[in-house]
Amino acid sequence: MTLNGNLLIGAQEVGATAGSMKALNPATNLEIEPSFAFGDIAEVDRAARLADDAFDSYNNTSLEVRAALLERIADGLDAITPELAQRASLETGLPVAQLEGEAAKTATQLRQFATVVRQGRFRQATIDPAQPARQPRPRMDHRMQKIALGPIAIFGASNFPISYSVAGGDTASALAAGCPVILKAHNGHPGTSELMGRVIRQAVKDSGLHEGVFSLVRGGGNAIGEALVDHPLIKGVTFTGSEGGGMALFRRAQLRPDPIPVFTEMTSVNPTFVLPAALFARGREIGDGFTERMLVTAGQACLKPAILLAIDGIGYSELKQAMIARVEAMQSRTMLTPGISTAYRKNVDRQLGAGAERIAAGGKPLGPWDGQSFLFEIDGSRMLDEPSLSEEVFGPAALLVRVKDVEQMIAIARQFRGQLSATMQIDRADHALAARLLPVLERRTGRIVINAFAHPQEVSYASIHGGPFPATSDGRFTSVGMSSIERFLRPVCYQGFPDELLPEALKHDNPRGIWRLTDGELSKA
Amino acid sequence: MTLNGNLLIGAQEVGATAGSMKALNPATNLEIEPSFAFGDIAEVDRAARLADDAFDSYNNTSLEVRAALLERIADGLDAITPELAQRASLETGLPVAQLEGEAAKTATQLRQFATVVRQGRFRQATIDPAQPARQPRPRMDHRMQKIALGPIAIFGASNFPISYSVAGGDTASALAAGCPVILKAHNGHPGTSELMGRVIRQAVKDSGLHEGVFSLVRGGGNAIGEALVDHPLIKGVTFTGSEGGGMALFRRAQLRPDPIPVFTEMTSVNPTFVLPAALFARGREIGDGFTERMLVTAGQACLKPAILLAIDGIGYSELKQAMIARVEAMQSRTMLTPGISTAYRKNVDRQLGAGAERIAAGGKPLGPWDGQSFLFEIDGSRMLDEPSLSEEVFGPAALLVRVKDVEQMIAIARQFRGQLSATMQIDRADHALAARLLPVLERRTGRIVINAFAHPQEVSYASIHGGPFPATSDGRFTSVGMSSIERFLRPVCYQGFPDELLPEALKHDNPRGIWRLTDGELSKA
Repeated sequence: MTLNGNLLIGAQEVGATAGSMKALNPATNLEIEPSFAFGDIAEVDRAARLADDAFDSYNNTSLEVRAALLERIADGLDAITPELAQRASLETGLPVAQLEGEAAKTATQLRQFATVVRQGRFRQATIDPAQPARQPRPRMDHRMQKIALGPIAIFGASNFPISYSVAGGDTASALAAGCPVILKAHNGHPGTSELMGRVIRQAVKDSGLHEGVFSLVRGGGNAIGEALVDHPLIKGVTFTGSEGGGMALFRRAQLRPDPIPVFTEMTSVNPTFVLPAALFARGREIGDGFTERMLVTAGQACLKPAILLAIDGIGYSELKQAMIARVEAMQSRTMLTPGISTAYRKNVDRQLGAGAERIAAGGKPLGPWDGQSFLFEIDGSRMLDEPSLSEEVFGPAALLVRVKDVEQMIAIARQFRGQLSATMQIDRADHALAARLLPVLERRTGRIVINAFAHPQEVSYASIHGGPFPATSDGRFTSVGMSSIERFLRPVCYQGFPDELLPEALKHDNPRGIWRLTDGELSKA
Repeated sequence: MTLNGNLLIGAQEVGATAGSMKALNPATNLEIEPSFAFGDIAEVDRAARLADDAFDSYNNTSLEVRAALLERIADGLDAITPELAQRASLETGLPVAQLEGEAAKTATQLRQFATVVRQGRFRQATIDPAQPARQPRPRMDHRMQKIALGPIAIFGASNFPISYSVAGGDTASALAAGCPVILKAHNGHPGTSELMGRVIRQAVKDSGLHEGVFSLVRGGGNAIGEALVDHPLIKGVTFTGSEGGGMALFRRAQLRPDPIPVFTEMTSVNPTFVLPAALFARGREIGDGFTERMLVTAGQACLKPAILLAIDGIGYSELKQAMIARVEAMQSRTMLTPGISTAYRKNVDRQLGAGAERIAAGGKPLGPWDGQSFLFEIDGSRMLDEPSLSEEVFGPAALLVRVKDVEQMIAIARQFRGQLSATMQIDRADHALAARLLPVLERRTGRIVINAFAHPQEVSYASIHGGPFPATSDGRFTSVGMSSIERFLRPVCYQGFPDELLPEALKHDNPRGIWRLTDGELSKA
């Protein structure tokens, strides 16, 4: 596929109206061809109007047509995977094999959402039949289904340039819900974004859908993102990235005359709590497993386990030595962008300044944007005094906390802000302690893992990639997994409708045989 | 039950710390005994800490204990209904019989939520079993359930002093979700609020639950409400009232360091669209039914049908005459509070100023806070030019819009902001036009009614009392009906858990036999 750097506004290609950029190869610090167009408010407005025009027809597509769109996108991704992974590797420094895995996962996720669409359960079809003889007054027929929220603006993430980007979970779940999508491409991987954008656009066309179902925009600075969040025809926003960026969008959207839902996935240190019996039995193995996970993709993952808390005792020094050995054996690696590399170095200094002791360092940086791996250690009492030590360091660094006892561990757990995930390493003899820690973690975490680490991310029905603030801006939702579709749906009740005017999911004979709640009972009748 | 005007902070009674008030009888303009205490930030802080202390145990009550709490509150309401309706009538000027109906509805709603709790479907229990043999890597066991969001601040509404107040739907659904509640009583009916607050407090005690599950606070000015919204231990807010009040709370909560969900139900004119065949067949009947509904409870209802749009033609003058006759026959009635009465008069003047013609007036006001009924008329073209005519007039006034043709009707429909409800009056011959109007209404409305008026509110599984902004602050939720519980729930994923540590809803043998989604299939297995 030839890249030309255009914006994709519905079916139309639009060249630069507000400057342009080239991608940077972070491994070589050299620019890559071609130039990529920046758009402006006018392009956002055009994309938003097209999305609004597309809404009624797309929201009312049959489930089959909508599922087929998602499968066409998946097929299109499969067809370009070698080219896509190659380009993404140039733009991000990530290994080609890892990126091929991301592409496969992204295609799988699109097909899973096609299944979710065909099942039709997302409609939450609910029927309270008429009760003409009810006293003191009859009940009319009430039926409810969920419909699409409206056109959605999606901000692509930088760290997983395929699976959390143009064709990632946000786009898949918004399209599954029936929402047209305007994708703001991340400037860290513009070519990768264009490749995926073209696949989606072609799938929209091949499905015979309104061109406004998908647009891809790009801009320098914040103007284009702000224009998206401000646009009156945009009805929801998703974002994955830093707390600063996410909160700027969130607060801006709340200041609109008509505030709209914004789901931002932002920051998490994914703490691991090692309980005494587990530490005694397998301290080395836990330290080894934790550090291996921490270093994956140079620590640039939202689920990176960044803080390990272990109660000092037998097994602690084995755990610590295993962590040190892994970190020291690690070569430095190119980070995703110069900005991320710079921020990483600053945050490492912040940890040192807060009193963390550096107990291991990996190979020295060779390239300009390389990230060196580090392991820090701190006492639990100091951790309680310095909440900044609980903040994220995005990159290949971790903090080992030497905890005095269970009480101190629970006190530290209570101090954590909201997290995407937390892990408990336990043995049978730790169950009573784990049961004490569990409610503390439930209140602060979207996912609790026992005897494993949160990464890699499963994408399925029970997956939750969310959590209380600041892990996300709204802990009631998830950005990964089949229930991520709920972000983009709203309920409508239809009262006293003749069958002819009812939407398909609510018609009397249930033509698609979907699950419905009738008079409080679930059935496919 | 003796009223003493105290705040109820958990199990404790707290007298005035920041002044006090007496209730006003709006019919006589005289104060009613006793004095009611105002609290301050200190009382909010104490209530919030108690609610936080109560959270873990209350969130983990068995479903049976939680259902029993809701039933105890319902029983307690039943026991005091005569006294409650009497006091509420004194404080609001509403008829005793109407208030007894409200109390019955409120008790029914509490019992319905007890059923929802016992069914356990609100947990959305979801299981992706382990797949140890999966390639390229095994899948761990993943399980998801929804748990309570945290302590919730609920602002009682003024217009339905029982069913949208202390023991109303917000409280019932938050308690059902597992959230402790701090209720800010509305100063329009302090005695009514205290009576219900005492019932809830007694039910909490009789259920053997932590005292922090419920507190009732009251304050002069905005300080106590702001303290609730700002308090770091409060994790969600609901409000029913004016757009100005609701948006002040909403925006304030979004400015917290950790923004929290705020659901406000604010403003709606619930437009009725009369299509030609229906107008021809039964213009008089439609005008009559609309106006009757409009005048219920002196038009002080969120679902009051306020605007009727009819295409000029045969039947129009019958419809108009029926409306005029009903309005002219109406005696003036005491409005809920002096503030509401004053605002009503101002908004009536706004309608006149925007060019609406007054075509009928009810009996002249006798008491100081009486509201006189009015009917206005305007041309459709003028309606398009004056969006302010689509704004709410809270009270017994309605606007009849003489529409030129279907195109103009759809154009006006597109101009409406978000609504709680809309009605179409149609006959068989109108179905094609109704199908055109339907998607326009779906995008702007939480409930669409055919050949009836939205009021009275059904409370059941398919009920939706929500809608796009400004009907509510988040169209993805509802404040009435069984799914209103979703506002107060958030998902947690449990990965790799031994059965012993799993929450009840997710244990392997499904001890309560609730519906669960296993590998994408619903079952009670």
